[in-house]
Amino acid sequence: MAGSVSKENEYLKKKEIKPSAFLNPVPLVMCSSGDMDNSDIITLAWCGTVNSDPPMLSLSVRKSRFSHHLILEKGKACVNLVSAELVKAADFCGVRSGRDTDKFKAAGLTKVASPLYGLPMIGESPVSIECSVKQVIELGSHDMFLMGIDAVCAAETLFDEKGAVDLRKARLVAYSHGEYYELGKILGFFGFSVAGGKALRRRARK
Amino acid sequence: MAGSVSKENEYLKKKEIKPSAFLNPVPLVMCSSGDMDNSDIITLAWCGTVNSDPPMLSLSVRKSRFSHHLILEKGKACVNLVSAELVKAADFCGVRSGRDTDKFKAAGLTKVASPLYGLPMIGESPVSIECSVKQVIELGSHDMFLMGIDAVCAAETLFDEKGAVDLRKARLVAYSHGEYYELGKILGFFGFSVAGGKALRRRARK
Repeated sequence: MAGSVSKENEYLKKKEIKPSAFLNPVPLVMCSSGDMDNSDIITLAWCGTVNSDPPMLSLSVRKSRFSHHLILEKGKACVNLVSAELVKAADFCGVRSGRDTDKFKAAGLTKVASPLYGLPMIGESPVSIECSVKQVIELGSHDMFLMGIDAVCAAETLFDEKGAVDLRKARLVAYSHGEYYELGKILGFFGFSVAGGKALRRRARK
Repeated sequence: MAGSVSKENEYLKKKEIKPSAFLNPVPLVMCSSGDMDNSDIITLAWCGTVNSDPPMLSLSVRKSRFSHHLILEKGKACVNLVSAELVKAADFCGVRSGRDTDKFKAAGLTKVASPLYGLPMIGESPVSIECSVKQVIELGSHDMFLMGIDAVCAAETLFDEKGAVDLRKARLVAYSHGEYYELGKILGFFGFSVAGGKALRRRARK
């Protein structure tokens, strides 16, 4: 297959830099917690999928953050995906503290009770994921919350005619090296490197 | 600030779907392990930054995967970031097994010994991160490896005139809902929602 990488590749010569959290790009989520009266939103990029079955994700939060105790006390949180339209609100919820700011109000966001646990969910987020805390691991600067994914709801406008969620419509945002990016050109789909002509044609029609 | 989100937002009406690992987008990495003679590459999207200080990331790998025992035995692995040019090789290394394929050879990749641990590093990757296993947590379908980041090396062509890494040049890839995406339009930088005119002008010049 892919002898597609040139032997004169421009990346072959490397230079060491100071070790840091250099994985890029990473996800960007707005994590809402607490209850409908006393809530907070924290924007996180230190998060990821950690398990498929049961579905789980990780959220890493500094102990000093206002959301930390809300997530811990309630044992639950809502993970809201970030669309391009939400990126300014997401940035704001990442730099301001919930101690002195009602972030739903300050960022002009609609607080909606989530269907399963009644958590404060962000109405304007294209997809919201209700989670419960399974384990908290202290790693140093951050505590990692291992979260079970208990419910997922997606905006009605994202569904295609077959009833499946078309996430391309959500204009999701990734975070890379201090900057927010809209997703760009589609380079392929899982399995495309070994797919036959039939699968390639089917996908091309999408 | 950002009363920028419309009250007639198209995402307000939501519908529940089956709970699954629905966090998107997520990173895409090629994890190389073993030694210079006996190596493997596994492509992973179930990974993320979990701590800043000390820097750590998580890698979730099914026990059945050939790379699983290599990472566990050696207690080390190299996390190689994926550029647009590498995406076909990355897909290939995600669908084929290292039991029957030498993936470096099959994907036309250059095996380079990493500077700190002498791990098999992917020469064509723009950034390679040497990691050591701190903890393994069994979560069900996947084992989550908590990895300390011990060394980072970046391609010389990525450095700007001030000696900093300009990751925009790396054309990094994100994974979202079964598809590989190049990063697209830059929507802002960390802190832009509250930045003064001076910071905004400085960033605009970049």
